[in-house]
Amino acid sequence: MRATVMYGAGDVRVEERPDPVVQRPTDAVVRTVLACVCGSDLWPYGSMPATGAGRPMGHEFLGVVEETGSAVSAVKAGDLVVAPFTYCDNTCDRCARGLHFSCRHGGRYGFDGVDGGQGEAVRVPQADGTLVKLPAGVDAGLLPSLLTLSDVMGTGHHGAVTAGVGRGDCVLVVGDGAVGLCAVLAARRLGAGRIVLMGRHEARTGLGREFGATDVIAERGAEGVARVRELTGGDGVAKVIEAVGTRQALETALTAVADGGTVSRLGVPQYEEGPVGRSMVLRNVTLTGGASPARAYIEELMPDVLDGSIAPGRVFDRSYSLEQAPDAYRAMAERRVIKALITF
Amino acid sequence: MRATVMYGAGDVRVEERPDPVVQRPTDAVVRTVLACVCGSDLWPYGSMPATGAGRPMGHEFLGVVEETGSAVSAVKAGDLVVAPFTYCDNTCDRCARGLHFSCRHGGRYGFDGVDGGQGEAVRVPQADGTLVKLPAGVDAGLLPSLLTLSDVMGTGHHGAVTAGVGRGDCVLVVGDGAVGLCAVLAARRLGAGRIVLMGRHEARTGLGREFGATDVIAERGAEGVARVRELTGGDGVAKVIEAVGTRQALETALTAVADGGTVSRLGVPQYEEGPVGRSMVLRNVTLTGGASPARAYIEELMPDVLDGSIAPGRVFDRSYSLEQAPDAYRAMAERRVIKALITF
Repeated sequence: MRATVMYGAGDVRVEERPDPVVQRPTDAVVRTVLACVCGSDLWPYGSMPATGAGRPMGHEFLGVVEETGSAVSAVKAGDLVVAPFTYCDNTCDRCARGLHFSCRHGGRYGFDGVDGGQGEAVRVPQADGTLVKLPAGVDAGLLPSLLTLSDVMGTGHHGAVTAGVGRGDCVLVVGDGAVGLCAVLAARRLGAGRIVLMGRHEARTGLGREFGATDVIAERGAEGVARVRELTGGDGVAKVIEAVGTRQALETALTAVADGGTVSRLGVPQYEEGPVGRSMVLRNVTLTGGASPARAYIEELMPDVLDGSIAPGRVFDRSYSLEQAPDAYRAMAERRVIKALITF
Repeated sequence: MRATVMYGAGDVRVEERPDPVVQRPTDAVVRTVLACVCGSDLWPYGSMPATGAGRPMGHEFLGVVEETGSAVSAVKAGDLVVAPFTYCDNTCDRCARGLHFSCRHGGRYGFDGVDGGQGEAVRVPQADGTLVKLPAGVDAGLLPSLLTLSDVMGTGHHGAVTAGVGRGDCVLVVGDGAVGLCAVLAARRLGAGRIVLMGRHEARTGLGREFGATDVIAERGAEGVARVRELTGGDGVAKVIEAVGTRQALETALTAVADGGTVSRLGVPQYEEGPVGRSMVLRNVTLTGGASPARAYIEELMPDVLDGSIAPGRVFDRSYSLEQAPDAYRAMAERRVIKALITF
């Protein structure tokens, strides 16, 4: 099969890889229909040391089950399925507590001999726990939005959930990438009354407004925080979603949050140390969030995608063929596209 | 009056200060009966730059109302009262949300012309919101425990509450100072089934066991964390209370916490930066806690003190007269006493 492999920063190739086959009774092989590039793929794209071995890329995909192991019963050949961004048994005590990323039998695509999601087919371990079947005869136009349940929409939703967003709340979303935009959509879905989006790319913030942002702040850093406080009566915002992963975004979030408020982080941190000293404690600020239990959220969010209440697939503003995956990475890294869809 | 004033690291003096009088209609003057030295007083004791002006010290006291302003109605001359460690109106939107430290009309003893608590009398601003009357005829033997409601017991309780401690939980308390010991007591009171206390001073951990600690770990750092994991089945502990305030204690807490768990901080951080990067996010660890809304907790905890269910005053293992306050600081700084009571 053909698949996307990264050999180092800026070096993404599409090449022949062995066709996946069922290796364990709990495996399924999925023939990919749609995949995409994640903001988190851009971190290694920017900094990965060169390697001769290459790393299969991608962890968001939707496809048709081709073959299942003898222990798989929840899906069968021919089923259209969506996969969360890590595989999991969905039955262990950690999954039961919404910690699918920490699943006792789980793991990541592209590691430990498991295929990446940006290829023609994927061997999915723990298929019963991992894969979620889509309704038969689903409208093909909904597939991009259903694909977002793999990761980006579930991740935005995790931010809104862990920040404690409820009806009428004022919410600040730091970052206008696809995750930030999905966080806006998720906050709106949970009833937020006011959603302030920090971002400076008009195509993105424009979509953010359509997703529910009531205010957009283009300024960054201290100036951006001053604008947040000006807009929200001086106290800052009680519920903040940090959807970037940089040190600057964390600083902005921790400075803009109100006393007693919560900062929920979604981006994979590109820093080791954060400013969590005296002020955060004296102001009773909580830092939460994390890797989304996308598997659990798929079932929660899917009905809203199917009935058109939310259309998170709008974050895909350009499609690429698999062979164009290197262009997709480049376009996302250069921020020319919000999120790149890969079609098969 | 005589009062305790700090002029720099290691330089605590008891000296003449003006007798406090009512300055605003919302003030009360309280004649001190009991006060004490806080672990947080030891930070300036260790590092405060020398100053000619001096800083009145102390924020935990219990006493008799001597005079009240014209707007004060909740307490009157002759009432025995306990004061939380900051004054507050107890009516603003922040107090209503349990953020008494951030009260819109609140402040700290020893700052902005307000007396410290380690003196013969204190002018208490916002007396109606701040002071809590003790029952008439209360047993004098209970006064030390009632004094702990000023700060240390309410702070320990805040750790247990914000860590989400509930019936049957396993809880880790990092630090065997008075706050850590009160956190043990609070966790036990909230029904924790297993309480692991990290501390190496036997007098303290002994009291910790009497307060409800089921396990004591004397090791620190990586070795201490290994012991925690060994004791708790390998996964770490879901509810961790960090009651020290040092960078090392934070590292221990963040390393010993289980995936999906919560670290609640109580100590005033003596660091600016903490290790809150990738691992914390991928493991869905929450960092919370903060300055306790002691004012709110006084009424919640007082019945348990009055009926003898809890005796947090046992953290006072030595009494000093006011004139001996410098000795009290020295003894606490040298860890010869857990917490020093000052009697008047």
